[in-house]
Amino acid sequence: MAHIDLGVDERRYPGITGLLAYRPETARPLMDLAEVLLRGPGTLTPGERELVAAYVSGRNECRFCRGSHGATAAAQLDQGASLVDQVLADPDTAPVSGKLRALLRIAAAVSDDGRSVTAELVDAARAQGATDLEVHDVVLIAAAFCMYNRYVDGLATVAPDDPQAYAMSAKRILEAGYRA
Amino acid sequence: MAHIDLGVDERRYPGITGLLAYRPETARPLMDLAEVLLRGPGTLTPGERELVAAYVSGRNECRFCRGSHGATAAAQLDQGASLVDQVLADPDTAPVSGKLRALLRIAAAVSDDGRSVTAELVDAARAQGATDLEVHDVVLIAAAFCMYNRYVDGLATVAPDDPQAYAMSAKRILEAGYRA
Repeated sequence: MAHIDLGVDERRYPGITGLLAYRPETARPLMDLAEVLLRGPGTLTPGERELVAAYVSGRNECRFCRGSHGATAAAQLDQGASLVDQVLADPDTAPVSGKLRALLRIAAAVSDDGRSVTAELVDAARAQGATDLEVHDVVLIAAAFCMYNRYVDGLATVAPDDPQAYAMSAKRILEAGYRA
Repeated sequence: MAHIDLGVDERRYPGITGLLAYRPETARPLMDLAEVLLRGPGTLTPGERELVAAYVSGRNECRFCRGSHGATAAAQLDQGASLVDQVLADPDTAPVSGKLRALLRIAAAVSDDGRSVTAELVDAARAQGATDLEVHDVVLIAAAFCMYNRYVDGLATVAPDDPQAYAMSAKRILEAGYRA
Protein backbone atom coordinates (compact mmCIF):
# COMPACT_ATOMS: atom_id res chain seq x y z
CA MET A 1 0.00 0.00 0.00
CA ALA A 2 1.25 3.49 -0.86
CA HIS A 3 2.13 5.92 1.96
CA ILE A 4 -0.75 8.18 0.88
CA ASP A 5 -4.31 7.49 -0.27
CA LEU A 6 -4.13 7.64 -4.06
CA GLY A 7 -7.89 7.27 -4.46
CA VAL A 8 -7.54 4.32 -6.85
CA ASP A 9 -7.37 0.53 -6.62
CA GLU A 10 -3.60 0.10 -6.45
CA ARG A 11 -3.75 -3.41 -7.91
CA ARG A 12 -5.23 -1.88 -11.06
CA TYR A 13 -2.99 1.22 -10.88
CA PRO A 14 0.40 -0.05 -9.66
CA GLY A 15 3.68 1.88 -9.54
CA ILE A 16 3.67 5.29 -11.14
CA THR A 17 0.23 4.83 -12.72
CA GLY A 18 -1.58 5.46 -9.42
CA LEU A 19 0.55 8.57 -8.83
CA LEU A 20 -0.27 9.89 -12.29
CA ALA A 21 -3.98 9.44 -11.58
CA TYR A 22 -3.61 11.14 -8.18
CA ARG A 23 -1.88 14.30 -9.45
CA PRO A 24 -2.67 15.07 -13.12
CA GLU A 25 -0.89 18.46 -12.91
CA THR A 26 2.48 16.78 -12.39
CA ALA A 27 1.58 13.72 -14.49
CA ARG A 28 1.52 15.74 -17.69
CA PRO A 29 5.13 17.06 -17.67
CA LEU A 30 6.39 13.73 -16.24
CA MET A 31 4.89 11.79 -19.14
CA ASP A 32 5.80 14.45 -21.73
CA LEU A 33 9.43 14.04 -20.61
CA ALA A 34 9.28 10.23 -20.85
CA GLU A 35 7.71 10.46 -24.33
CA VAL A 36 10.42 12.80 -25.68
CA LEU A 37 13.31 10.91 -24.09
CA LEU A 38 12.21 7.32 -24.77
CA ARG A 39 10.08 7.55 -27.91
CA GLY A 40 10.85 10.91 -29.55
CA PRO A 41 13.03 11.34 -32.66
CA GLY A 42 16.60 10.23 -31.97
CA THR A 43 19.54 8.19 -33.23
CA LEU A 44 19.39 5.73 -30.35
CA THR A 45 16.56 3.27 -30.95
CA PRO A 46 13.61 3.34 -28.54
CA GLY A 47 14.66 -0.17 -27.46
CA GLU A 48 18.17 1.07 -26.58
CA ARG A 49 16.75 4.00 -24.65
CA GLU A 50 14.33 1.77 -22.73
CA LEU A 51 17.32 -0.47 -21.95
CA VAL A 52 19.13 2.49 -20.35
CA ALA A 53 15.96 3.25 -18.34
CA ALA A 54 15.66 -0.38 -17.19
CA TYR A 55 19.37 -0.55 -16.35
CA VAL A 56 19.26 2.58 -14.15
CA SER A 57 16.04 1.35 -12.51
CA GLY A 58 17.78 -1.95 -11.78
CA ARG A 59 20.73 -0.13 -10.20
CA ASN A 60 18.27 1.84 -8.06
CA GLU A 61 16.46 -1.43 -7.23
CA CYS A 62 13.11 0.03 -8.28
CA ARG A 63 11.11 -3.12 -9.02
CA PHE A 64 8.21 -1.41 -10.78
CA CYS A 65 10.32 0.68 -13.18
CA ARG A 66 12.77 -2.14 -13.82
CA GLY A 67 9.87 -4.47 -14.67
CA SER A 68 8.01 -1.97 -16.79
CA HIS A 69 10.94 -0.57 -18.79
CA GLY A 70 12.64 -3.96 -18.99
CA ALA A 71 9.51 -5.33 -20.66
CA THR A 72 9.24 -2.31 -22.96
CA ALA A 73 12.91 -2.68 -23.94
CA ALA A 74 12.52 -6.44 -24.49
CA ALA A 75 9.53 -5.89 -26.76
CA GLN A 76 11.60 -3.59 -29.01
CA LEU A 77 14.95 -5.42 -29.11
CA ASP A 78 15.72 -8.34 -31.43
CA GLN A 79 17.33 -10.25 -28.56
CA GLY A 80 14.37 -9.57 -26.26
CA ALA A 81 14.28 -10.25 -22.53
CA SER A 82 17.49 -12.26 -22.62
CA LEU A 83 19.49 -9.14 -23.56
CA VAL A 84 17.74 -7.05 -20.91
CA ASP A 85 18.65 -9.63 -18.27
CA GLN A 86 22.28 -9.73 -19.43
CA VAL A 87 22.62 -5.92 -19.42
CA LEU A 88 21.09 -5.64 -15.97
CA ALA A 89 23.38 -8.39 -14.68
CA ASP A 90 26.58 -6.99 -16.20
CA PRO A 91 26.69 -4.43 -19.03
CA ASP A 92 30.44 -5.02 -19.44
CA THR A 93 29.89 -8.57 -20.74
CA ALA A 94 26.42 -8.22 -22.31
CA PRO A 95 26.31 -8.51 -26.13
CA VAL A 96 25.66 -4.84 -26.93
CA SER A 97 27.50 -2.46 -29.27
CA GLY A 98 30.62 -0.69 -28.02
CA LYS A 99 28.72 2.59 -28.21
CA LEU A 100 25.82 1.39 -26.08
CA ARG A 101 28.22 -0.17 -23.57
CA ALA A 102 30.06 3.16 -23.20
CA LEU A 103 26.74 5.00 -22.82
CA LEU A 104 25.60 2.51 -20.16
CA ARG A 105 28.80 3.32 -18.22
CA ILE A 106 27.84 6.99 -18.33
CA ALA A 107 24.32 6.12 -17.15
CA ALA A 108 25.77 4.17 -14.21
CA ALA A 109 27.92 7.15 -13.22
CA VAL A 110 24.91 9.49 -13.39
CA SER A 111 22.91 7.19 -11.14
CA ASP A 112 25.72 7.26 -8.55
CA ASP A 113 26.20 11.05 -8.66
CA GLY A 114 26.26 13.50 -11.56
CA ARG A 115 29.80 14.49 -10.67
CA SER A 116 30.96 10.92 -11.37
CA VAL A 117 30.61 11.45 -15.12
CA THR A 118 34.20 12.10 -16.15
CA ALA A 119 35.61 13.51 -19.38
CA GLU A 120 37.21 10.06 -19.85
CA LEU A 121 33.80 8.34 -19.83
CA VAL A 122 32.46 10.86 -22.36
CA ASP A 123 35.58 10.55 -24.55
CA ALA A 124 35.25 6.75 -24.48
CA ALA A 125 31.65 7.02 -25.71
CA ARG A 126 32.71 9.44 -28.46
CA ALA A 127 35.48 7.02 -29.52
CA GLN A 128 32.72 4.42 -30.04
CA GLY A 129 30.76 6.83 -32.23
CA ALA A 130 28.42 8.47 -29.71
CA THR A 131 27.29 11.99 -30.63
CA ASP A 132 26.93 14.91 -28.24
CA LEU A 133 23.16 14.59 -28.44
CA GLU A 134 23.32 10.88 -27.56
CA VAL A 135 25.53 11.67 -24.56
CA HIS A 136 23.11 14.42 -23.52
CA ASP A 137 20.07 12.20 -23.84
CA VAL A 138 21.61 9.26 -21.99
CA VAL A 139 22.63 11.55 -19.11
CA LEU A 140 19.11 12.94 -18.97
CA ILE A 141 17.44 9.51 -19.26
CA ALA A 142 19.59 8.24 -16.38
CA ALA A 143 18.92 11.38 -14.32
CA ALA A 144 15.18 11.18 -15.05
CA PHE A 145 15.03 7.58 -13.85
CA CYS A 146 16.76 8.63 -10.65
CA MET A 147 13.63 10.79 -10.27
CA TYR A 148 10.96 8.30 -11.42
CA ASN A 149 12.49 5.51 -9.29
CA ARG A 150 12.52 7.71 -6.15
CA TYR A 151 9.00 8.95 -6.85
CA VAL A 152 7.61 5.43 -7.23
CA ASP A 153 9.48 3.97 -4.24
CA GLY A 154 9.44 7.11 -2.05
CA LEU A 155 5.65 6.86 -1.95
CA ALA A 156 5.78 3.07 -1.52
CA THR A 157 3.60 2.23 -4.50
CA VAL A 158 2.76 -1.37 -5.31
CA ALA A 159 4.95 -3.34 -7.76
CA PRO A 160 3.25 -6.38 -9.33
CA ASP A 161 4.98 -9.76 -9.01
CA ASP A 162 3.45 -11.12 -12.22
CA PRO A 163 5.69 -10.55 -15.28
CA GLN A 164 2.52 -10.54 -17.39
CA ALA A 165 1.51 -7.22 -15.79
CA TYR A 166 4.67 -5.60 -17.12
CA ALA A 167 4.27 -7.19 -20.54
CA MET A 168 0.77 -5.73 -20.78
CA SER A 169 2.05 -2.32 -19.69
CA ALA A 170 4.75 -2.51 -22.39
CA LYS A 171 2.11 -3.35 -24.98
CA ARG A 172 0.09 -0.27 -24.01
CA ILE A 173 3.18 1.96 -24.17
CA LEU A 174 4.16 0.64 -27.61
CA GLU A 175 0.65 1.19 -28.91
CA ALA A 176 -0.22 4.54 -27.37
CA GLY A 177 2.92 6.07 -25.87
CA TYR A 178 3.49 7.62 -22.46
CA ARG A 179 1.08 10.50 -22.89
CA ALA A 180 -1.98 8.24 -23.19
CA MET B 1 33.28 23.68 -19.65
CA ALA B 2 30.45 21.25 -20.25
CA HIS B 3 31.21 17.74 -21.54
CA ILE B 4 29.37 18.54 -24.78
CA ASP B 5 29.25 21.62 -27.01
CA LEU B 6 26.07 23.44 -25.96
CA GLY B 7 26.36 26.04 -28.69
CA VAL B 8 26.08 28.93 -26.23
CA ASP B 9 28.43 31.09 -24.16
CA GLU B 10 28.41 29.10 -20.93
CA ARG B 11 29.24 32.15 -18.84
CA ARG B 12 25.99 33.70 -19.99
CA TYR B 13 24.10 30.37 -19.87
CA PRO B 14 25.43 28.58 -16.77
CA GLY B 15 24.05 25.42 -15.15
CA ILE B 16 20.80 24.11 -16.55
CA THR B 17 20.17 27.22 -18.67
CA GLY B 18 22.69 26.13 -21.33
CA LEU B 19 21.13 22.65 -21.39
CA LEU B 20 17.65 24.10 -21.86
CA ALA B 21 18.92 26.16 -24.80
CA TYR B 22 20.65 23.08 -26.28
CA ARG B 23 17.62 20.78 -26.21
CA PRO B 24 14.29 22.67 -26.29
CA GLU B 25 12.31 19.42 -26.69
CA THR B 26 13.31 18.25 -23.21
CA ALA B 27 13.48 21.80 -21.78
CA ARG B 28 9.74 22.24 -22.06
CA PRO B 29 8.59 19.34 -19.84
CA LEU B 30 11.51 19.94 -17.44
CA MET B 31 10.44 23.54 -16.87
CA ASP B 32 6.72 22.70 -16.87
CA LEU B 33 7.46 20.29 -14.01
CA ALA B 34 9.46 22.90 -12.06
CA GLU B 35 6.70 25.47 -12.54
CA VAL B 36 3.94 23.16 -11.22
CA LEU B 37 6.00 21.85 -8.30
CA LEU B 38 7.63 25.08 -7.14
CA ARG B 39 5.18 27.81 -8.15
CA GLY B 40 1.83 26.14 -8.87
CA PRO B 41 -1.16 26.25 -6.52
CA GLY B 42 -0.37 24.52 -3.22
CA THR B 43 -0.54 24.76 0.57
CA LEU B 44 3.23 24.88 1.00
CA THR B 45 4.47 28.37 0.13
CA PRO B 46 6.72 28.76 -2.93
CA GLY B 47 9.49 29.78 -0.49
CA GLU B 48 9.10 26.52 1.46
CA ARG B 49 9.12 24.49 -1.76
CA GLU B 50 12.25 26.27 -3.03
CA LEU B 51 13.83 25.54 0.35
CA VAL B 52 13.23 21.80 -0.16
CA ALA B 53 14.77 22.10 -3.64
CA ALA B 54 17.82 23.95 -2.27
CA TYR B 55 18.19 21.47 0.60
CA VAL B 56 18.19 18.42 -1.70
CA SER B 57 20.59 20.19 -4.09
CA GLY B 58 22.89 20.88 -1.14
CA ARG B 59 22.78 17.21 -0.11
CA ASN B 60 23.65 16.27 -3.70
CA GLU B 61 26.40 18.92 -3.68
CA CYS B 62 25.08 20.48 -6.89
CA ARG B 63 26.53 24.00 -6.67
CA PHE B 64 24.45 25.53 -9.44
CA CYS B 65 21.05 24.26 -8.21
CA ARG B 66 21.88 24.96 -4.56
CA GLY B 67 22.86 28.53 -5.46
CA SER B 68 19.92 29.15 -7.74
CA HIS B 69 17.17 27.63 -5.58
CA GLY B 70 18.77 28.89 -2.37
CA ALA B 71 18.54 32.43 -3.75
CA THR B 72 14.97 31.88 -4.96
CA ALA B 73 13.98 30.52 -1.53
CA ALA B 74 15.73 33.40 0.28
CA ALA B 75 13.91 35.97 -1.85
CA GLN B 76 10.55 34.50 -0.79
CA LEU B 77 11.14 33.75 2.91
CA ASP B 78 10.86 36.37 5.67
CA GLN B 79 14.10 35.15 7.25
CA GLY B 80 15.91 35.23 3.87
CA ALA B 81 19.33 33.74 3.19
CA SER B 82 20.05 33.19 6.87
CA LEU B 83 17.28 30.59 7.10
CA VAL B 84 18.41 28.89 3.88
CA ASP B 85 21.93 28.59 5.29
CA GLN B 86 20.66 27.17 8.58
CA VAL B 87 18.43 24.58 6.86
CA LEU B 88 21.23 23.48 4.56
CA ALA B 89 23.61 23.21 7.52
CA ASP B 90 21.21 21.30 9.79
CA PRO B 91 17.43 21.10 9.27
CA ASP B 92 17.02 19.54 12.73
CA THR B 93 18.06 22.75 14.49
CA ALA B 94 16.98 25.36 11.88
CA PRO B 95 14.06 27.60 12.97
CA VAL B 96 11.38 26.09 10.72
CA SER B 97 7.91 24.77 11.56
CA GLY B 98 7.56 21.21 12.84
CA LYS B 99 5.72 20.35 9.63
CA LEU B 100 8.46 21.67 7.35
CA ARG B 101 11.13 19.93 9.45
CA ALA B 102 9.31 16.59 9.10
CA LEU B 103 8.92 17.14 5.35
CA LEU B 104 12.64 17.96 5.03
CA ARG B 105 13.39 14.61 6.70
CA ILE B 106 11.30 12.90 4.01
CA ALA B 107 13.15 14.86 1.31
CA ALA B 108 16.50 13.72 2.75
CA ALA B 109 15.34 10.09 2.66
CA VAL B 110 14.19 10.44 -0.96
CA SER B 111 17.57 11.86 -1.96
CA ASP B 112 19.31 8.85 -0.39
CA ASP B 113 16.99 6.25 -1.96
CA GLY B 114 13.22 6.20 -2.45
CA ARG B 115 12.96 3.06 -0.34
CA SER B 116 14.33 5.01 2.67
CA VAL B 117 11.02 6.84 3.07
CA THR B 118 9.41 4.90 5.93
CA ALA B 119 5.83 4.90 7.19
CA GLU B 120 7.26 6.40 10.41
CA LEU B 121 8.64 9.43 8.54
CA VAL B 122 5.29 9.94 6.80
CA ASP B 123 3.35 9.50 10.06
CA ALA B 124 5.63 12.04 11.76
CA ALA B 125 4.87 14.59 9.02
CA ARG B 126 1.14 13.90 9.33
CA ALA B 127 1.35 14.36 13.12
CA GLN B 128 2.74 17.86 12.39
CA GLY B 129 -0.19 18.64 10.11
CA ALA B 130 1.16 17.62 6.69
CA THR B 131 -1.48 16.56 4.16
CA ASP B 132 -1.19 13.67 1.72
CA LEU B 133 -0.75 16.15 -1.12
CA GLU B 134 2.08 17.93 0.73
CA VAL B 135 3.82 14.58 1.32
CA HIS B 136 3.34 13.70 -2.36
CA ASP B 137 4.71 17.02 -3.57
CA VAL B 138 7.73 17.00 -1.26
CA VAL B 139 8.62 13.46 -2.38
CA LEU B 140 8.33 14.54 -6.02
CA ILE B 141 10.26 17.81 -5.49
CA ALA B 142 13.08 15.86 -3.81
CA ALA B 143 13.02 13.21 -6.55
CA ALA B 144 12.95 15.86 -9.29
CA PHE B 145 16.02 17.57 -7.84
CA CYS B 146 17.82 14.23 -7.82
CA MET B 147 17.22 14.48 -11.58
CA TYR B 148 18.02 18.18 -12.13
CA ASN B 149 21.20 17.93 -10.00
CA ARG B 150 22.45 14.89 -11.94
CA TYR B 151 21.56 16.50 -15.27
CA VAL B 152 23.46 19.72 -14.45
CA ASP B 153 26.52 17.98 -12.95
CA GLY B 154 26.47 14.89 -15.20
CA LEU B 155 27.13 17.16 -18.17
CA ALA B 156 29.65 19.26 -16.18
CA THR B 157 27.96 22.59 -16.73
CA VAL B 158 29.47 25.77 -15.31
CA ALA B 159 28.36 27.02 -11.86
CA PRO B 160 29.04 30.74 -11.23
CA ASP B 161 31.04 31.69 -8.13
CA ASP B 162 29.41 35.12 -7.84
CA PRO B 163 26.34 35.08 -5.51
CA GLN B 164 24.97 38.00 -7.54
CA ALA B 165 24.47 35.68 -10.52
CA TYR B 166 22.09 33.52 -8.45
CA ALA B 167 20.29 36.56 -7.05
CA MET B 168 19.63 37.78 -10.60
CA SER B 169 18.43 34.32 -11.63
CA ALA B 170 16.06 34.31 -8.62
CA LYS B 171 14.72 37.71 -9.66
CA ARG B 172 13.96 36.43 -13.17
CA ILE B 173 12.22 33.34 -11.78
CA LEU B 174 10.08 35.39 -9.41
CA GLU B 175 9.08 37.75 -12.20
CA ALA B 176 8.53 35.37 -15.07
CA GLY B 177 8.51 31.79 -13.72
CA TYR B 178 10.31 28.71 -14.95
CA ARG B 179 8.57 28.52 -18.32
CA ALA B 180 10.00 31.85 -19.53
